[in-house]
Amino acid sequence: MRLDPDRLLPSDPATRAVARRLYERVAGLAIISPHGHVDAALLADNEPFSDPAELLIRRDHYVTRLIHAAGVPLERLGVPERTGDAITVSPREVWRTFCEHWHLFAGTASGYWLASGLVELFGIELDPCAENSDQLFDAIQEALASPEFRPRALFERFAIEVLATTDDPLDDLAAHAALAADPSFAGRVIPTFRPDAYLHPLAPGWADRVARLAQRCGSGASSYRGYLDALAERRRYFVAHGAVCADHAMVQPLSVELAEPDAAALFARGLAGELSAAEAAVFSGHMLIEMARMSVEDGLVMTLHPGVYRNHSSDTFARFGPDTGHDIPLATSFVEGLRPLLERYGENPDFHLVLFTVDETTFSREIAPLAGFYPSVYIGAPWWFLDAPDAILRFRAAVTETAGFYRGAGFVDDTRAFLSIPARHDTSRRLDSAFLARLVCEGRLELEAAERIAVDLVDTLPRKVFKL
Amino acid sequence: MRLDPDRLLPSDPATRAVARRLYERVAGLAIISPHGHVDAALLADNEPFSDPAELLIRRDHYVTRLIHAAGVPLERLGVPERTGDAITVSPREVWRTFCEHWHLFAGTASGYWLASGLVELFGIELDPCAENSDQLFDAIQEALASPEFRPRALFERFAIEVLATTDDPLDDLAAHAALAADPSFAGRVIPTFRPDAYLHPLAPGWADRVARLAQRCGSGASSYRGYLDALAERRRYFVAHGAVCADHAMVQPLSVELAEPDAAALFARGLAGELSAAEAAVFSGHMLIEMARMSVEDGLVMTLHPGVYRNHSSDTFARFGPDTGHDIPLATSFVEGLRPLLERYGENPDFHLVLFTVDETTFSREIAPLAGFYPSVYIGAPWWFLDAPDAILRFRAAVTETAGFYRGAGFVDDTRAFLSIPARHDTSRRLDSAFLARLVCEGRLELEAAERIAVDLVDTLPRKVFKL
Amino acid sequence: MRLDPDRLLPSDPATRAVARRLYERVAGLAIISPHGHVDAALLADNEPFSDPAELLIRRDHYVTRLIHAAGVPLERLGVPERTGDAITVSPREVWRTFCEHWHLFAGTASGYWLASGLVELFGIELDPCAENSDQLFDAIQEALASPEFRPRALFERFAIEVLATTDDPLDDLAAHAALAADPSFAGRVIPTFRPDAYLHPLAPGWADRVARLAQRCGSGASSYRGYLDALAERRRYFVAHGAVCADHAMVQPLSVELAEPDAAALFARGLAGELSAAEAAVFSGHMLIEMARMSVEDGLVMTLHPGVYRNHSSDTFARFGPDTGHDIPLATSFVEGLRPLLERYGENPDFHLVLFTVDETTFSREIAPLAGFYPSVYIGAPWWFLDAPDAILRFRAAVTETAGFYRGAGFVDDTRAFLSIPARHDTSRRLDSAFLARLVCEGRLELEAAERIAVDLVDTLPRKVFKL
Repeated sequence: MRLDPDRLLPSDPATRAVARRLYERVAGLAIISPHGHVDAALLADNEPFSDPAELLIRRDHYVTRLIHAAGVPLERLGVPERTGDAITVSPREVWRTFCEHWHLFAGTASGYWLASGLVELFGIELDPCAENSDQLFDAIQEALASPEFRPRALFERFAIEVLATTDDPLDDLAAHAALAADPSFAGRVIPTFRPDAYLHPLAPGWADRVARLAQRCGSGASSYRGYLDALAERRRYFVAHGAVCADHAMVQPLSVELAEPDAAALFARGLAGELSAAEAAVFSGHMLIEMARMSVEDGLVMTLHPGVYRNHSSDTFARFGPDTGHDIPLATSFVEGLRPLLERYGENPDFHLVLFTVDETTFSREIAPLAGFYPSVYIGAPWWFLDAPDAILRFRAAVTETAGFYRGAGFVDDTRAFLSIPARHDTSRRLDSAFLARLVCEGRLELEAAERIAVDLVDTLPRKVFKL
Repeated sequence: MRLDPDRLLPSDPATRAVARRLYERVAGLAIISPHGHVDAALLADNEPFSDPAELLIRRDHYVTRLIHAAGVPLERLGVPERTGDAITVSPREVWRTFCEHWHLFAGTASGYWLASGLVELFGIELDPCAENSDQLFDAIQEALASPEFRPRALFERFAIEVLATTDDPLDDLAAHAALAADPSFAGRVIPTFRPDAYLHPLAPGWADRVARLAQRCGSGASSYRGYLDALAERRRYFVAHGAVCADHAMVQPLSVELAEPDAAALFARGLAGELSAAEAAVFSGHMLIEMARMSVEDGLVMTLHPGVYRNHSSDTFARFGPDTGHDIPLATSFVEGLRPLLERYGENPDFHLVLFTVDETTFSREIAPLAGFYPSVYIGAPWWFLDAPDAILRFRAAVTETAGFYRGAGFVDDTRAFLSIPARHDTSRRLDSAFLARLVCEGRLELEAAERIAVDLVDTLPRKVFKL
Repeated sequence: MRLDPDRLLPSDPATRAVARRLYERVAGLAIISPHGHVDAALLADNEPFSDPAELLIRRDHYVTRLIHAAGVPLERLGVPERTGDAITVSPREVWRTFCEHWHLFAGTASGYWLASGLVELFGIELDPCAENSDQLFDAIQEALASPEFRPRALFERFAIEVLATTDDPLDDLAAHAALAADPSFAGRVIPTFRPDAYLHPLAPGWADRVARLAQRCGSGASSYRGYLDALAERRRYFVAHGAVCADHAMVQPLSVELAEPDAAALFARGLAGELSAAEAAVFSGHMLIEMARMSVEDGLVMTLHPGVYRNHSSDTFARFGPDTGHDIPLATSFVEGLRPLLERYGENPDFHLVLFTVDETTFSREIAPLAGFYPSVYIGAPWWFLDAPDAILRFRAAVTETAGFYRGAGFVDDTRAFLSIPARHDTSRRLDSAFLARLVCEGRLELEAAERIAVDLVDTLPRKVFKL
C-alpha cells in the first residue's frame, strides 16, 4: 500500500503535468469544512481515541455496510445496538474482521480514504489482511496513545480552519462554547441547526420534541405561533454560538405556501396524531418556507439534503438505529417542489440556498439551471454516494457547462469519520485540479484562469457561500 | 484570450492526431441550420447591429441569466421590460457589467462561444474585464459600423447555406418572402411553423389566438373543424414560403387519440374557459397527433422540444416576459406518451419526427431505442443546456452504441445569438471529430469509415432528415 | 475490416500497457454464461446452421431493428411472421440487404460483435457491402457445412464451460437431459426457470397457462394453493435438470406482501378475468415475494430484468410477435418497490438476488447502494441496450465507488445469437481491464490487486453468485 504522489490525476502526461501544477497551488490550503457530523465534544474533551475499531470502523457506516453486505452481521463489527447491550466483540476482533475484508474496498471511496489515513497518519504500508491484523492494530493503538494523536493535535495537523458540526435544535452547544472560550484552542468549531425531527409531524417522537421545544423556550402552550417563535429563538441561540447554517433533510424537496390559519390547523392536528402522510408532507413543506423566511431574517445559510429513503431495512433499524448503512437514494425532483420557496425568496440577495443531491441526474437537468438563474441558489458538492473520484468528475462535467465554477459552494466532507477529513478534502482538490487541467489541455480554459479557479473552489467560494 | 487550433480535441496525442484529421474534413463545410431563433428581418433589413450590448448581451438569455445569478438585476443588463419602458442603462454600461463578470463564464458553453466570436470576428485577444471594457466596446462598435459586419455579410462569411427561423403561424413571413425575392441575397432563409400557443388551451390568450386564426383563414365560426382547416391552411402557407419543419414544445411529450366529437367538445369547452389542466393536456395531446397527421400530408418534419418548466420565476416573467433565463428542465418520459402517435405514424416512411431533450437520461434509455426501431424517429442534437462540449460527448456515447450514427438528425444551433452560429457548429464538428477519433484509436471504427461519418453528420444527415 | 489486438483498450499508452497486461490474464479463461437465450436444442441436435441469414440476421433483433429503422420492412429481413406464412425472401436476399446496410452498424455494439464473428470465425476481412454480398454469403455458407461449424464444435472452440438457457416452466427440458446424458458432450447446458407468463394475470393466455400448469402437476382444481404447489414442483424439476436460477421480468420491480386469503381471492378473480391493471400488479408483486420464498427453499438464484415496455409497436407485434426489436426501456425504480421483498429475505444468506436494469440512472443511485448493504443483493452486468463498450465503462464507474468489485455478479451475455457469445465476453473482459488499468494509472489501485480482481470478475464472482 503506497500513495502515489500523482494519485487521482489523469494518466495523459500533458494533462497530468497541468493538473499537478494546479494541485500544488491548493494542496496546502487550510481546510474549510462547513458541513459534517463530527461531534464537538470530541475536540472539547480531547481524549485519546480508544482503539482502531472505534476510530475507523464501528461508527463509519460507509465501512460497516460493505462488510455487512459480505455477510458479516453488524454486531460482529461492534456497531452499537439500540438496546445499549454491552458490545461483546473486542476492538481487536472488529479490526481483524475489517482486515479480512479489506479487498472489498478496492476501488471504493472509503477504501481510498482509509488507505490515505493508514499510510499518512500511521505510516502503514501493508495491505490489511488476516495475517497482519494484530500487527496493524498494535501499531495504530500505540500511535493513538501519543499526544500527537489527540483530536486537537490532529485538528491542527490537518490544518482545519473551520469545522461545522450538525446539532439538534435543543442541544445546549456546551462543547462549542467550551471550545470558543478555550484560549488554548485556536480552531473554529461551529454548530449547524438541524431541525428535521421538529418539522416532520410523522417523525417518531415529533409531538414530544415540540413539547420540549415549547418548554425550553418558555413559549407556553404548544401553539403554532409559539412553535415558530421557539424555533426562531433556538436559531438565534445557534447564531450566538457561531452557527452559519441550518441544514434540512427530507424525502423530496417540497415547499408549500399555506396561510397561517391553515398551517396552525395542521399543526394542531399533527400534535393530536391525526395527519395523513399527505397532510404531514404539506405541513413540513410549509415549514421549509418558514425556515427560509427565518434564514432571511437571521442569515443562516439553508442547505438541503433531500432524496434519501432512510432506514430501508426496518429490522436493522430496530436493532441498530439510524445511520447504519441502509439509507438508499431516490429519484429526486427539485423544479416544481422548490418553486413556491423560490418564488418568495429566490431573488433575495441575503438568502443562500445550497442544494445537495444523491440523484446525479439532477446535476445537469435541475440544479445547475436553477443555480444558473437564481442568485440565492448554490450547487452543493457531490454528496454521500457521489463524493468519490469518478462521481466528482461527473459532477463537475455536469454542472460547469451550464453554471460555470462560481455557482458552487465549495467542498463539504459531510463526515463523522474525523480521520478521513484531510483525505476527503485532498481528493476533492486533486479532482478539481484534474478537471481544470483537462479544460486547459483541451483549449477551453487559460492556465491562469484555472489557477485562480482552483484556489477559489477551495477558499473563496465556501467562505462566501457559507458566510464565513 | 486565444483560440487553440486544437481546441476541444482530446489531449491524448494519438487521438488528437486522428481527431484533427477528421476535423479538417468538415471544418470548411457550409453551415446547415435547420432549427434556430434568428429573426428573418435581421437579414431582410440588413441594418448594422447597433452596439455590442445589443449584439451579444441583452437578448442572449444564456448570458444574462448567469450574470443575474451573480446578483445583477436584469434591468442593469438592458433586458427589455414588458411594459416597454425606456431602457435607462446605456449599451456601454451593459457592456461594462458584462466585462466585470466575464470570469463567471469560464468553463461554460456561452463563454466558449463568446470568446470564439470576440477573437475570430473582432480580433480581440484581451480577457474582458472592468479595465478594458471601454476599449473593447469601442473596438466592437467601430467594427459594427463597417459593411463587412452587416448581417448579410456575416451570413456569407459564416458560409451559412440554410437558416431556419421559428415563427408564429399567423406571421405573414414577409421578411422570408423579401429575402427569397431578392436576387442580391443567395442564402436560403426558411420559416418554421411553431403552433404551440394555438394548441394548448390554457396558454394565455389561446381563445383570442384561435379567433384570429379563424378570422385570417376565413373559416368562419370558430368550430373545431374550422380550427383544423385553418391550421392546415397556415401550414400550407409556410410550406409555400419554404418551410420544411413544424416545431412543437410541451411540458411532457404526450399524445392522445380522441374521436372527433370528443375533440370538438373539448375545443368548445376550451374556448369557454372550462377545461381543467388534465383536460387541456388531453386536448393538446390529441392535437399533437393531428399535427403529425398534417405532417404526413404536407411533408413538414415534426420536431419535439419537450421537458422544460417555462418561466419558473413568475416575478421575472411578469416584468421581462418569456425567454429570460429561468426555464428549467424536467425529468421527461417519451415511451408511453408518444406511443399513440407512433402507433399511427411511426412506421410511415414520409413522416420524420425528431426528438430533442434536456433530460439526458433519456438519450440511452428512450430516444436511441425508439430511433433504433421506428423509421420515422430521429435523434435530435443535444439541446439547450446540453449543447456544450462535455454534454455533446456524453450524448454521442449515450446514443451511438444503440442507434449508430445514422439515426441522428445532425446538429442544430437553436440560437437567437446570430454571432454564435459559426462557433456553435464548429464546436459540434470538433467534438464529433473527437468522438470518432476515440473510436478509431480504440479499434472500434476504421479511419475511412470515421471520415465518411464525419461528413455525413454535418452534411448528409441534416439534408435528409430535414428534407433540404 | 480488421481486429486491432488492442481494441477497446484506452488510447493513452501507459493505461493501455496496464490494460493489456490485465487482459492477458483473462483473455483465455473459460466462458461462464449464467444467463442467455440460446436454445438447448441447438446443441442437442447439433445440426449445421442452415445459412448466414439464419445464423446472423433473421433471429437477432438487435440487427433487424436497426435495418428496419432505415426503412426496410421486417419481412424483407426474413423475420418469421406469426401466421407462419412461408418466408418468401431467400437467405441470400436477406444477407444482401444486411450487407447493403452494414454502415448503419458503425459504432454500435452489434456491429462490433458481428465484425468480431466475421473476422475471427470466417476470416472475412472485407467490409460487407452490396458488391461483396454474394461472395461473403458463399464463404460463410461453405464454412457452415464443415464439421467445425456445428454448434457443439463451436461450443468447444468458444471454451464455454457453462451455458444457461431460458425456459418456460412447462418445458420438459428434454434437450437439456439429452445433453447431460450424452457422454460425447462435455459442456454444461443448464435451464433457467422463467415464469413471467404464469405470474402476471393480465398476460395473454394466463388462465390457460395456469390450467395447464395445474394439469401437468396434478394439483387438481386450479386453487391458489395448487398453483403455488405446481410452481414449486416445476422449480424442483428445473433444479433436478441442473437449473441454478429463476429469472423474472416485469415493468416495474414491485413486491407486495399479501395475506394468503387476499392472494387467493385475487387469483380466483384473475382466472375469472376480473382484475384491474392495479389489482393484477398487486398480485404479481405478491408472486414475486412467493418466488423469493421458493428461491430460499430450493436455492435458485433470483434474477430481475425489469423496466422494459415490451412490444411497443402493436402492429409489429401482431405480425411478428415478441422480441422483434421494439421493446423500449423505461425509467425504473427499485428502492420502494423491492422493499417488502428485502424486508423479508434481504438479509438471508441463502438468497441471491441479481438486479439488472436498462435505466442506467439506477446504477449509482439505487442498485449499488442496495447491493452495498444487503448481503442478498448483487449487481447485474450492464444489460441489453447497455451491454456495449462505453455503457460498460459507465456502469463500472457508476457502481464501483459505492459497492466495490465484489458485489457484482460477473458478466452475462443475455444473447440468443450463439455466434456472438465469445465476442461479448471478450468485450467485457477488455473493458474491465481498461477500467482497472485506469484505476491503477490514477494511483487508485495496486496492479497486483487489479490482476486478482480481473480474474475474479470473470471467474470467481459468477461461480459464487450463480452457485455454479
